[in-house]
Amino acid sequence: MKILVTGGAGFIGSHLCDELLNKANSVVVVDNLSLGKIDNIKHLTGEVSFKFYREDLLNYKKIVKIFRNEQPDIVFHMAANSDIASSIKNPEIDLNNTYLSTFNVLNVMRELGISKLFFASSSAIYGDTFSNLTENFGPLLPISHYGAGKLASEAFISSFSACYDIQSWIVRFPNVVGERATHGVIYDFINKLKSNPGKLEVLGDGEQYKPYLYVKDLVDAMLFIWNKSSDRFNVFNIGVESRTKVRTIALMVVEEMGLNTEIKYSGGSRGWVGDVPVFNYNLSKLHNLGWKAKITSDEAVKKSIRYILGKTDE
Amino acid sequence: MKILVTGGAGFIGSHLCDELLNKANSVVVVDNLSLGKIDNIKHLTGEVSFKFYREDLLNYKKIVKIFRNEQPDIVFHMAANSDIASSIKNPEIDLNNTYLSTFNVLNVMRELGISKLFFASSSAIYGDTFSNLTENFGPLLPISHYGAGKLASEAFISSFSACYDIQSWIVRFPNVVGERATHGVIYDFINKLKSNPGKLEVLGDGEQYKPYLYVKDLVDAMLFIWNKSSDRFNVFNIGVESRTKVRTIALMVVEEMGLNTEIKYSGGSRGWVGDVPVFNYNLSKLHNLGWKAKITSDEAVKKSIRYILGKTDE
Repeated sequence: MKILVTGGAGFIGSHLCDELLNKANSVVVVDNLSLGKIDNIKHLTGEVSFKFYREDLLNYKKIVKIFRNEQPDIVFHMAANSDIASSIKNPEIDLNNTYLSTFNVLNVMRELGISKLFFASSSAIYGDTFSNLTENFGPLLPISHYGAGKLASEAFISSFSACYDIQSWIVRFPNVVGERATHGVIYDFINKLKSNPGKLEVLGDGEQYKPYLYVKDLVDAMLFIWNKSSDRFNVFNIGVESRTKVRTIALMVVEEMGLNTEIKYSGGSRGWVGDVPVFNYNLSKLHNLGWKAKITSDEAVKKSIRYILGKTDE
Repeated sequence: MKILVTGGAGFIGSHLCDELLNKANSVVVVDNLSLGKIDNIKHLTGEVSFKFYREDLLNYKKIVKIFRNEQPDIVFHMAANSDIASSIKNPEIDLNNTYLSTFNVLNVMRELGISKLFFASSSAIYGDTFSNLTENFGPLLPISHYGAGKLASEAFISSFSACYDIQSWIVRFPNVVGERATHGVIYDFINKLKSNPGKLEVLGDGEQYKPYLYVKDLVDAMLFIWNKSSDRFNVFNIGVESRTKVRTIALMVVEEMGLNTEIKYSGGSRGWVGDVPVFNYNLSKLHNLGWKAKITSDEAVKKSIRYILGKTDE
């Protein structure tokens, strides 16, 4: 099967490409390399069943051309802004890279009659709530532009799916960690400690408590869902049942770096405006389909720390 | 109070302006007149507390200038594509006029520190479902790009409200009818009968069953909600408890026109792709706040027919 992956040079996208190629598919990546890296896919560039286009999804005419040339059987749309905190100063980052990129993908698919879409959505669409977050939860009140851009994307996927009979899979990710991650709390701590090993300032009170899913588990879940669910419109939360506190992450980083650091908390429940401090969503739908994460949140965090520090386990 | 109304020359927007001026506010209208009409506001143009700008919300630089000059206390954002069926052939109509117009309004408000927004959303965000549609209903799966554009707008209103402390009121409208309406099923039937009085072809089976709210009731509800609810983020369905079948509308139009017409149904449950055939949402929240529609759905339809035919009751 020929699969086009947008954002395929990114952290998650590149792991997805690895696995799709492992399963004997042909893979076409479109990535503008604004956040993605050639390094993430350089091991694939020799393969005959792999092709890479450096292009921005906002460049509609170029995108139509690529999609028309390639005629993929399905599009995995992974491209998005992934630096949630950045867009508070400039909401157009998520307007363009999280939402309009999706609209363009949908519009190209409509124009060319490509009829299958797999979309990487996010737990950020749920906003700041302690409720039981099933896939049917409402109201959806995102508190970051990233979450808003993902929800806006889901909205148009729904209307395109209904109007042009596009079969769609929407999967909502929690925090994802592991090899090739380029930012997020683990990265921040390590960078801070590299410049000042004696003291680590943690934003918030350290009590932020969230599930961190290992990237290879995530990709496994995506392909499982794609394989096992075949409604016209399929929506799944993907996650891991366990969670990790920011306080614990700080301690793990300090330990893995072999430091003796004073950890200071700036206070307040949120790490930054738009941060959702406590989060855990309902995974029954995915569990009932037959999938559970193999690696706990703590283990995933540890793997990610060790990878960033160059202590690869594999 | 100074109130800026986008889409203020439109069907609903112009009624809103009438009522805001009645209540001694100062009103500034921004409308590109793509769907709005000067005719709808020409009776206001003499008033000192009324001002009109012909401008497109997509023209960001011009909009910033107008908002900066006017410094409104609150923005009533009513502008949108209102011709739902049209965008199936060109989804960019709703991308631009329903969604991006909202993003620009939000971004200008952020830039200038305008801190109150009242937004005209729609029952179309709920999609095609028989469920009990409270304001907290999920999942939201719109089947038209108009519904998707409204949901995408709500998503970003949520994130802007959270990030920049913008107090927001979101009200979701059903079908609205009455004086100055320019399209919709009533209009279509009258136009068809004017060109062929002997035969009326009705799209679908005539069993589409929806609430039609009288425009003056709608505006009354909007101002009631604005007056009585003061959370940072307020969401209300606005509607009327009664409903009217398309079949009944056809008969009422034929009767009011004094014709003896053969009515033919094209069949199928939907009038057009993206149409939601049976719809009725939960109004408990608004009823509990203390508001109910004064005019039934049938009466509202009749008023609208008589207005279009020039038989004004007032």
